[in-house]
Amino acid sequence: MSDAPSLKQISLNQITTEQWTLEEAVQGCVRQEISWISVWRHKLQEVGLTKSKKLINDAGLRVSSLCRGGMFPAATAAERRERIEDNKKAIEEAAELNTDVLVLVCGPAPDRNIESARKWVEEGIEELIPYAAQHGVKLGIEPLHPMYAADRSVISTLGQANTISENMKTDQVGVVVDVFHVWWDPELYKEISRAGQNILGFHVSDWAVPLPDIFKGRSMMGDGVIEIRKMRKAVESAGYHGPIEVEIINQAIWNQPGDETLNQMKKSFIEHV
Amino acid sequence: MSDAPSLKQISLNQITTEQWTLEEAVQGCVRQEISWISVWRHKLQEVGLTKSKKLINDAGLRVSSLCRGGMFPAATAAERRERIEDNKKAIEEAAELNTDVLVLVCGPAPDRNIESARKWVEEGIEELIPYAAQHGVKLGIEPLHPMYAADRSVISTLGQANTISENMKTDQVGVVVDVFHVWWDPELYKEISRAGQNILGFHVSDWAVPLPDIFKGRSMMGDGVIEIRKMRKAVESAGYHGPIEVEIINQAIWNQPGDETLNQMKKSFIEHV
Repeated sequence: MSDAPSLKQISLNQITTEQWTLEEAVQGCVRQEISWISVWRHKLQEVGLTKSKKLINDAGLRVSSLCRGGMFPAATAAERRERIEDNKKAIEEAAELNTDVLVLVCGPAPDRNIESARKWVEEGIEELIPYAAQHGVKLGIEPLHPMYAADRSVISTLGQANTISENMKTDQVGVVVDVFHVWWDPELYKEISRAGQNILGFHVSDWAVPLPDIFKGRSMMGDGVIEIRKMRKAVESAGYHGPIEVEIINQAIWNQPGDETLNQMKKSFIEHV
Repeated sequence: MSDAPSLKQISLNQITTEQWTLEEAVQGCVRQEISWISVWRHKLQEVGLTKSKKLINDAGLRVSSLCRGGMFPAATAAERRERIEDNKKAIEEAAELNTDVLVLVCGPAPDRNIESARKWVEEGIEELIPYAAQHGVKLGIEPLHPMYAADRSVISTLGQANTISENMKTDQVGVVVDVFHVWWDPELYKEISRAGQNILGFHVSDWAVPLPDIFKGRSMMGDGVIEIRKMRKAVESAGYHGPIEVEIINQAIWNQPGDETLNQMKKSFIEHV
């Protein structure tokens, strides 16, 4: 008997092979028999949407999510309007790539007022709901680790993401659970259970000690202290059985050949996820 | 009218002038008319307890807290026993220095099991209560930023610290609020209010963007994004009116003359705390 997840669930989050173009990542997945990929928009833009779609479809890959929408708070109403428009574009791209999840990294405050920023996040998500529904795309609020509260997202806990998601009163909005961001939370398992069917994605990596870097500090599963398997079982119990994205932002991993990374990913996935 | 706190409340947390010995820090406080100091145990050990006490008393300084007890979790029962004994020694030192607060940095897990580590923290604190009471010293649980959950403390939120403190059902245990550790928390103001009279200390610094370093990354008040004044007013409304420690761990600040730091501290305190 094995506790391991099925390799059919593994998804390459494209940031894990940041050194690769989308075409290289797609080819890598084919070579390594990985059937899911999570696409980043800056990689999409390099190739263009039409060609990206063709590359992915021709390879027979499925897209687990598009990274990323969000970044709602901004100093002026005009800038916040631009952010909304950009999110609409991201929704269109997600629909075009046949993924039903747009991951939201909600953004930092433009000033010291974190409360206003959080309000703008809620307003932004609410405004996007009809457009997302029209395109068959769900909005996945990803709480980011509190160490990113000042520069990436004012949504820092799963509890906070759950509350926003629940307040929207629609299946169109849910949450994304990334072990790196939430593992430390004393309320974690309660909040995973509360999220239930609203879990739209599950991301894995690890927290090594000492942390190599604030931004590029994520490690391969098994190389850190996170109880990844326990969390994977918890999200499964809560009702999530979709793809599991390996999302590792780490310069050392970007420096190695992508195929080596994909091989390590699969091995670590079976052993530690 | 001024919203500023009184300079009578400012306390030099000794780590802010890590380049100074205890004697130098005491002399600096006298020169700069700072009447409170928070003493670190590694500095105490350099001089010895008796001489430290004399230095502080002769200078007419008062000790806002002793840093730090805690570090409860360990792999073996024997090691955990040693940690308890060391905490008892810290309680004795705090009593000897006439401070009624021992700050607890509760410690990381020795392995991946964060839940067990949290249990050991609670057990450790509970065991110390009678000894602390006997010595007239209160135990201040300081939640540390979640980015330190793997290497410094498994107590990461004020809510968690409040729950432990309340569970102990004694005035002997309370919480310490450090703006750097808790500013990001969506539950912050609710938890400050909940903490009420159990707040045993208030520490200030700032979170600059980008953060200069994970450990040595704290900045002078005003140089970052934390709403320090709002938080100071909240702890006052909750019932805390004691000394306010300036606790900045930052290599650049350690590299400058200590008197310059003390001057900046006072200026920033009036402007931003």
